[in-house]
Amino acid sequence: MKWKPSRLSHLTIQEQIVDWIKSRIECGDWTVGTKIPTQRQLAAQFNVNRSTVQLAIEELKADGMLESKMGSGVFVANNSWNVLLDRSQPNWQQHIESSIYKPNYRTIQLINEYEQYDHVIRLGTGELSPELLPTKQIEQSLKVISLDAKSIGYSSPQGSLKLREILCNYLKKRDIQTSPENILIVSGALQALQLIAMGLLEEGSVVFHEQPSYLNSVHPFQSAGMHMIPVSRNPNLSDNMRTLKRKRQSLYYCVPTLHNPTGYNWSLEEKKNLYNVCNELQIPIIEDDVYHELLFEPTSPAIKSFDASGQVLYIGSVSKTLSPGLRIGWIVAPSPVIERLADIKMQTDYGSSAFSQEIVAHWISTGLYERHLVTLREQLKRRAIFVENILDQQFKEIATWRKSEGGFYIWLRFNEPIVNKRLFLDLLNQNVLINPGYIYDSGDLHHIRLSYAYASLEELNIALTYLLEHAR
Amino acid sequence: MKWKPSRLSHLTIQEQIVDWIKSRIECGDWTVGTKIPTQRQLAAQFNVNRSTVQLAIEELKADGMLESKMGSGVFVANNSWNVLLDRSQPNWQQHIESSIYKPNYRTIQLINEYEQYDHVIRLGTGELSPELLPTKQIEQSLKVISLDAKSIGYSSPQGSLKLREILCNYLKKRDIQTSPENILIVSGALQALQLIAMGLLEEGSVVFHEQPSYLNSVHPFQSAGMHMIPVSRNPNLSDNMRTLKRKRQSLYYCVPTLHNPTGYNWSLEEKKNLYNVCNELQIPIIEDDVYHELLFEPTSPAIKSFDASGQVLYIGSVSKTLSPGLRIGWIVAPSPVIERLADIKMQTDYGSSAFSQEIVAHWISTGLYERHLVTLREQLKRRAIFVENILDQQFKEIATWRKSEGGFYIWLRFNEPIVNKRLFLDLLNQNVLINPGYIYDSGDLHHIRLSYAYASLEELNIALTYLLEHAR
Repeated sequence: MKWKPSRLSHLTIQEQIVDWIKSRIECGDWTVGTKIPTQRQLAAQFNVNRSTVQLAIEELKADGMLESKMGSGVFVANNSWNVLLDRSQPNWQQHIESSIYKPNYRTIQLINEYEQYDHVIRLGTGELSPELLPTKQIEQSLKVISLDAKSIGYSSPQGSLKLREILCNYLKKRDIQTSPENILIVSGALQALQLIAMGLLEEGSVVFHEQPSYLNSVHPFQSAGMHMIPVSRNPNLSDNMRTLKRKRQSLYYCVPTLHNPTGYNWSLEEKKNLYNVCNELQIPIIEDDVYHELLFEPTSPAIKSFDASGQVLYIGSVSKTLSPGLRIGWIVAPSPVIERLADIKMQTDYGSSAFSQEIVAHWISTGLYERHLVTLREQLKRRAIFVENILDQQFKEIATWRKSEGGFYIWLRFNEPIVNKRLFLDLLNQNVLINPGYIYDSGDLHHIRLSYAYASLEELNIALTYLLEHAR
Repeated sequence: MKWKPSRLSHLTIQEQIVDWIKSRIECGDWTVGTKIPTQRQLAAQFNVNRSTVQLAIEELKADGMLESKMGSGVFVANNSWNVLLDRSQPNWQQHIESSIYKPNYRTIQLINEYEQYDHVIRLGTGELSPELLPTKQIEQSLKVISLDAKSIGYSSPQGSLKLREILCNYLKKRDIQTSPENILIVSGALQALQLIAMGLLEEGSVVFHEQPSYLNSVHPFQSAGMHMIPVSRNPNLSDNMRTLKRKRQSLYYCVPTLHNPTGYNWSLEEKKNLYNVCNELQIPIIEDDVYHELLFEPTSPAIKSFDASGQVLYIGSVSKTLSPGLRIGWIVAPSPVIERLADIKMQTDYGSSAFSQEIVAHWISTGLYERHLVTLREQLKRRAIFVENILDQQFKEIATWRKSEGGFYIWLRFNEPIVNKRLFLDLLNQNVLINPGYIYDSGDLHHIRLSYAYASLEELNIALTYLLEHAR
């Protein structure tokens, strides 16, 4: 469907490319300031030599339609519009720069972008490998799901009652007792955080979290104007939080089970201590529990399981276990919180996909989900051991790490502070995508979040070899 | 799955209910200030007489666990917690009241709530009747959709490339020429507005819109701190907007085809005039085009079709035509805008359901979608005529209306200003849910948005009879 120059045209290939780029600008698709695709990308799309593309771009630069910016690419020039026709355009760049939401960090934008390309080896990604997803079984289950017309209309504010009832039952295995009224279905854990930021906190509130933190790599609270304050779970936690909180509203965000990015599991004592401190200071806790099904061995129960005061907002999801494409997660919380967040969700996107909810309900209620988890844990464990063997053999002198207890990640620490943007870009040049520690803790130049869950064993081997070359 | 008292217990039914309610409070599901379900709802859940529930609630009130608030129901009392055990709870109500996002208007919350109940006749709802949804055909299509593992992982920031390519082709029929890079898949049109509010406007920006307006019934811009300014499409539009805009950023929101709630279709001249004025003032236009496939007769082309300057952000969706439960819509816009909104969407919910995207791609590309639209338009037309006949026979002396040109609605105007909250609640008492004009224009006490798309013909007849009784 993408445009290509035609060998049959009376125009040369170069002329056709020049006309096509002009038409993109003319029709308003590429406005002033748009960065155009790279020569390599265009050459691939047009199925021509890169030199032909280069000549076409040079011609357009000479005409004042395009301009190069050192090191960052080729852009639609400011006066392109005057060149083409006498019309004014909204200044989109100005709109974007002055608007409310923070952009993703450049490194994360690059990660999001390069994760799309098949030739890139994803060494840090927070996603299961396609070969670990039960694609064919899901396809099979689509054939037996029966829909009723009610279920594909707009959903009730809290999401499918059927799914919420099934989740109540499922959560009992995590020692969490709740009822359908206390569950809100969301489009993944990140949306849960977004709703909490908009619905439960005033601007300038304090969000406590550990360092390194997943919350540094996404912006739901930062974009809503909250202060992110790192705290450690040490004996002074209570005093520290009391001092830092002052009179402000606050909450504590944590991933106590298979912490992202470190993979650490809190002890029961650490969980109880945090709970008691937060209870005393009346600080709500967000317990992000999206990895717990991937524990290789059972650990201590979730904080929510001993929450007798409605203090904990508990978040679960199937994105790390069944399929991220479903976009289904849930929040368990006291009724006023659930009603409030459901009200905002209705104002934001009118609920999550009814089809995705049907699929998740089917997988959990039939036991397909838990059977899949058994296999998945085995496969992840096998992959963890494979990577740990490579590390043992080749990285012992330059890095340290803890043996994985489950999930996707090994939090690999290099002895030297080598994990900087240069390393990220150098590896990207070799088509290896890493998640550097500095996206989880801006001052950290020692760690990478190494994922054994996505790339194939062969790719893991190759990528680790490249990594070793750069790290030595 | 819901708890019920047991006839076999050594406790009386009343005692069991008291214990159960206490346990809800104790475990933190019902925190201080929670409104508990009505006696009628509880009696239905427990399968007991309402008087038994009443006695249990009286007992809990006497114990200081619950308290009544005049006319608004029974709530968990402030000191319930002290009564039960010596623990503190976060003050959720305070959190909620001071937080960023505006709650839905009470009337709209009630609409969202009562739309869930089967016994309620929905006379104003913005949704197709279950009998108009192609449920069985969608179920059939699930059986033939084949998934590949890539497609059920996290999607690319802009959404499924396959769907975007299919949409490019589909949009040609609306005379809109675009490319996959200029499309963003969103979870319905409302999310598109939400992303635009967060990603393209600074706080305090101006959003121009017509009165009455769909935007008064939802808050994506208001919650982000924008000024909503009503303007009319009159000869002074240019001067008015120039004056009102001042130096601020602004945009113009419109539904030029089958306007919500009035059903009005703009003439080509009106569209061109708005476009030229906005072009001159560099005001971007949001063209909300989610109803156009439901036109009974073709009208003038979309504004986007003559947008040569990348001025128009065009929004489409399948929620009004195929199934709202899919939660799939799209924005067509210049590249910098799409990249920006995709970046925010990735930060908000990591993309829309891959399964829903597969279903929509299948329906549009195979032509199923357009064949369904032919039937749907016929059925809607039949329903419109049915309602118009009733209006002709019974409402001529008290109200006026324009014949429907498509979509779901008739904007019924009563001669007297009778459409107030009283009327809304009186009809709700008779299990008839209306969308009063004041949710689209706060000063309007004359209109209701009458939908012929949801209730059955019989229900429409009954509900209109009730409406007539109250209106006379």
